[in-house]
Amino acid sequence: MDIKVGIVGFRGYSGAELQVILRRHARVSTLLIDHRADSAERPQPLGAQSLPRISSTPEAIQAAGIRVVFLATPPEVSLEFAPPLLDRNIRVIDLSGAFRLRTQDNYRRWYKAEHPAPGWLEKAVYGLPEFYRRDIHPAALLSNPGCYPTAANLALRPLVASGLLDLSAGIVCDAKSGVSGAGRKPSLKTHFCEVTENFSAYSVLDHRHVPEVLLNSGLDEPQFSFTAHLLPLDRGILETIYFRAPRVKDAAQLHELYREAYQSEPFVRLYAPGVMPDLRAVQHTNYCDLGLAFDETTGRGVVVAVIDNLVKGAAGQAVQNMNLMLGFPETEALL
Amino acid sequence: MDIKVGIVGFRGYSGAELQVILRRHARVSTLLIDHRADSAERPQPLGAQSLPRISSTPEAIQAAGIRVVFLATPPEVSLEFAPPLLDRNIRVIDLSGAFRLRTQDNYRRWYKAEHPAPGWLEKAVYGLPEFYRRDIHPAALLSNPGCYPTAANLALRPLVASGLLDLSAGIVCDAKSGVSGAGRKPSLKTHFCEVTENFSAYSVLDHRHVPEVLLNSGLDEPQFSFTAHLLPLDRGILETIYFRAPRVKDAAQLHELYREAYQSEPFVRLYAPGVMPDLRAVQHTNYCDLGLAFDETTGRGVVVAVIDNLVKGAAGQAVQNMNLMLGFPETEALL
Amino acid sequence: MDIKVGIVGFRGYSGAELQVILRRHARVSTLLIDHRADSAERPQPLGAQSLPRISSTPEAIQAAGIRVVFLATPPEVSLEFAPPLLDRNIRVIDLSGAFRLRTQDNYRRWYKAEHPAPGWLEKAVYGLPEFYRRDIHPAALLSNPGCYPTAANLALRPLVASGLLDLSAGIVCDAKSGVSGAGRKPSLKTHFCEVTENFSAYSVLDHRHVPEVLLNSGLDEPQFSFTAHLLPLDRGILETIYFRAPRVKDAAQLHELYREAYQSEPFVRLYAPGVMPDLRAVQHTNYCDLGLAFDETTGRGVVVAVIDNLVKGAAGQAVQNMNLMLGFPETEALL
Amino acid sequence: MDIKVGIVGFRGYSGAELQVILRRHARVSTLLIDHRADSAERPQPLGAQSLPRISSTPEAIQAAGIRVVFLATPPEVSLEFAPPLLDRNIRVIDLSGAFRLRTQDNYRRWYKAEHPAPGWLEKAVYGLPEFYRRDIHPAALLSNPGCYPTAANLALRPLVASGLLDLSAGIVCDAKSGVSGAGRKPSLKTHFCEVTENFSAYSVLDHRHVPEVLLNSGLDEPQFSFTAHLLPLDRGILETIYFRAPRVKDAAQLHELYREAYQSEPFVRLYAPGVMPDLRAVQHTNYCDLGLAFDETTGRGVVVAVIDNLVKGAAGQAVQNMNLMLGFPETEALL
Repeated sequence: MDIKVGIVGFRGYSGAELQVILRRHARVSTLLIDHRADSAERPQPLGAQSLPRISSTPEAIQAAGIRVVFLATPPEVSLEFAPPLLDRNIRVIDLSGAFRLRTQDNYRRWYKAEHPAPGWLEKAVYGLPEFYRRDIHPAALLSNPGCYPTAANLALRPLVASGLLDLSAGIVCDAKSGVSGAGRKPSLKTHFCEVTENFSAYSVLDHRHVPEVLLNSGLDEPQFSFTAHLLPLDRGILETIYFRAPRVKDAAQLHELYREAYQSEPFVRLYAPGVMPDLRAVQHTNYCDLGLAFDETTGRGVVVAVIDNLVKGAAGQAVQNMNLMLGFPETEALL
Repeated sequence: MDIKVGIVGFRGYSGAELQVILRRHARVSTLLIDHRADSAERPQPLGAQSLPRISSTPEAIQAAGIRVVFLATPPEVSLEFAPPLLDRNIRVIDLSGAFRLRTQDNYRRWYKAEHPAPGWLEKAVYGLPEFYRRDIHPAALLSNPGCYPTAANLALRPLVASGLLDLSAGIVCDAKSGVSGAGRKPSLKTHFCEVTENFSAYSVLDHRHVPEVLLNSGLDEPQFSFTAHLLPLDRGILETIYFRAPRVKDAAQLHELYREAYQSEPFVRLYAPGVMPDLRAVQHTNYCDLGLAFDETTGRGVVVAVIDNLVKGAAGQAVQNMNLMLGFPETEALL
Repeated sequence: MDIKVGIVGFRGYSGAELQVILRRHARVSTLLIDHRADSAERPQPLGAQSLPRISSTPEAIQAAGIRVVFLATPPEVSLEFAPPLLDRNIRVIDLSGAFRLRTQDNYRRWYKAEHPAPGWLEKAVYGLPEFYRRDIHPAALLSNPGCYPTAANLALRPLVASGLLDLSAGIVCDAKSGVSGAGRKPSLKTHFCEVTENFSAYSVLDHRHVPEVLLNSGLDEPQFSFTAHLLPLDRGILETIYFRAPRVKDAAQLHELYREAYQSEPFVRLYAPGVMPDLRAVQHTNYCDLGLAFDETTGRGVVVAVIDNLVKGAAGQAVQNMNLMLGFPETEALL
Repeated sequence: MDIKVGIVGFRGYSGAELQVILRRHARVSTLLIDHRADSAERPQPLGAQSLPRISSTPEAIQAAGIRVVFLATPPEVSLEFAPPLLDRNIRVIDLSGAFRLRTQDNYRRWYKAEHPAPGWLEKAVYGLPEFYRRDIHPAALLSNPGCYPTAANLALRPLVASGLLDLSAGIVCDAKSGVSGAGRKPSLKTHFCEVTENFSAYSVLDHRHVPEVLLNSGLDEPQFSFTAHLLPLDRGILETIYFRAPRVKDAAQLHELYREAYQSEPFVRLYAPGVMPDLRAVQHTNYCDLGLAFDETTGRGVVVAVIDNLVKGAAGQAVQNMNLMLGFPETEALL
């Protein structure tokens, strides 16, 4: 029998992607939780079947028999929805940044505010399956990783864990994202005429996703320089990560580090040394693809990581986490 | 009385941009030198006035009274055209990489070939006016800088010259360019369907433009990591340059370094600390715009540099050089 | 001595284009009239010179000595601004649709409302210089044409006037516009992710620009079918106009009709029969380019008209009208 | 047991789309027929499974046990491949225009050449399932429809068949296509910098796809005006079709015509009157979506038809035809 799951924020880009993926899922039936009708829906052909809708009170959600709720919402909405659902033993997968930073101190520093539910903040499990698979299964509150940190953490951890990095030289992560990462709410920043044929850096050395990378990669803040950029395209993230590893002998050794780390991972793919993935390789998939380059004479290296920000960077990873939480095959609806 | 100048390669993107700029120029008249008719020209309205054309033999160019020839051509064509023109005392502004690397050794290393005219290679003047204005005036053979190095050198030199950098940590230059930088010759790389909604890294740690940066910025190879990327847009380069400068006190000090270096430069513009230029700010102009960010607690900094690869990165800078060579106002036809 | 002109709505796309053009104009000095500061301005380099600003009361505008005000505003704002300025003998060039429909009846039909200033509605001069040059010179209130009607009227009139059309078959105008035509105010319709890689028809057979075409081309409503489409690009309009002209002998005869009509027009350019202009030919220019195709055996023909919607379709034509109103050379600042 | 099928031209855009669809198909196994290796393949992650390859001689294809060959090739290659395969009783689905025009006369007129296999030309079955389902099942040589005609024929036939059109006024089909319709072979026409931010008409009143529409819609040449345009996007066709139907009472009657025609079709979807589909509705699907608008007072109407040119316009329809030919469920691998 199917398990019922619900989506709050189904009209946004992550919510729409959740609908696409969950319609393919053989073991759940999905309900749309109608929180706010302020965003226009697309024209539909006659007879198109849309998913059933229910109202957004905790009571209605419980009465509908929903076992897992996806919050594809801004942090402030997630902070409002999560606690009453959790109190009713409804499991929550939150796609916002509301529960990612583990401690009140860390939250205060990056969000410039007190977290209203510090107990849940500490209990939340960070949903990067490649690192925390075992903790995800029993989680009540699953905090789905940010899009930039997903790519950065997957690209960095084998390297940091190897102990072969020259950390004093620091790591540079130059990150570029498509516009869907900024959400569906209209703003001048996402106006077609401001974006097309344009390209810009933002949050230079000061992005809210940085602490998520630090917490999960094993790096300290002074070691990690991050800048985000806005690409004139819909979906995809590419991060170019520069490091110095003077004790790595050659590209093959570097490659072997990654091969070992990810050989049994269904959603991380490695390229031959010197071959680089592009966004096309991962769009509309849950893969994170990694390419490596290394200059033996100087010990400088580069990892290029690409994901689809709406899939492995949001909705796809959320379903991967749901699969783990509910004991389903991890790749169900994702391959 | 007007001075006559000619363009070889006028059908390419740099050549077309040269036509646009030179038509605005009050002191020269321009002739198109018809080297190869293999590239289609655009449909024209009836009565459109095109520039006069002559054939491409050195004799015809001399007979036409041309004093300066722009070579908007691939390196191998420039290597063929430049010497016979220079032998006839016709000055040459070469937009290719054929004469940028100063020595046979350096050329051999990066182009994997012997330079066929090593004498001219050594005599060529590197046309970055902000650095070499005085040498440009008398030049017979002017080697116009590459697009990536123009932005990188303008962004780096005040910083390197200050002696405040921690060079052991290295400099990272993450560069992104529009497609016109790859030229007008059709290839799979520039096919619309391969580029749109896509983004990719190329020449990772191994781009031919690197030695141009090293030669003019004062950096050594192990200190400089460079990766190029292809943006899904027509024109513009943005470079995000990461450095460590532990002895810089604050953003204001950093800003002052740049202000002093460029305050009298007509084509370099500085933004307030923390404000970043985007491509829109410089497209179809000869400006290089610079934005700065600095984290005082850790000494990490970022410079963002933007240019139009076809203007300050090619045709505009070539005309700026021509103005200096012929004793015209440096900004003529460029503001 | 310069004549002072002012712009209301200078932050929008038409207003920004007006600034670009008027900065090139040798005979006017331009002031920005600060009506509403609700729209973000772009980051500027230090030292960038912006035009002077004044407040938006009629008194302040009069006190500043402004002789002509451009209203680059929505119709409801134009309706509010125009009458008090006209009452003070300040001439107005309105870029909105507020004063284009000549009569209260016509306005009521298409705008479903009473026009609040029917006297001015009737006195307004329709600013299509190629048709109404003589009336424009003395105009107090100049109603600048819509973008779609500018292209359609220029494409249609020689044909309609010739009397060679089979009007019973009707005329089809299939119009496509870039996104800047929808203005700078953010909306879901102009969100990058909704537009990129997408294309759609809107206002099918029911666009507010239709009456402007009927009033000026000499067609009746049942004869004219118009549909607008949104192109995934910033600027440019292309209209493909289909007609039947069984008494036209051949393409040459058709071409001659247009050549005669526009041979002395500085901003209308004709292509050889069968050669079609694209958007690139007119972007950032005040030209309207026309291409013709004709099938002699069946009498079916097509005119393709292209303009830049922000220039000939808005700001450029507005300055062309200003030049005529003030007795300046018509092409000043526009070539 | 699986049936073996092969693809010639698997590196092109239609060929790549065939691979995507056929990998999902539960009842066939697919082989790539390696005709020409002249087109670069994309970088692949390590371990990526590609389909098996065989050489392209008729003998090798027969020896491999292939029962159906898809020719995703230019007409001249299809003309070379089809006959020897058919002679060996291997069924052929040809995606080119080589066998679409039924008679030598018609072919000669539009291709300006003699058809080298007129016998096969006459025996070929035109693969538009919505019209010719019964003939498709036994076909030896299936001629897959062109992309433009697929949309046009589906949009036109209910209307033409109704007898309610005023054919003397003619039908206008204004068609716009993404760049992938031009194929993967690099050319100036498909160069990113020529296409981005541009839009153009081509083959005005003179496109090779016109006879395919005439043959299958029931229209005569003087009644049908067609112009193609190139959209700055990867995939999708939108056709805006204008007609006059004075005897149609209202939009509801028009709508009912279409509902009846397509109510049992799995891949044709209808929208409510006045609601128009956009390209996003059909990209990466095998649907043809139809929107209708009608002006009762004048009898003028518009049908908007959208398809993905690589799916319903090529590879998807080809698999739909294969399903019919092999007696599989028609929607297998396509929903």
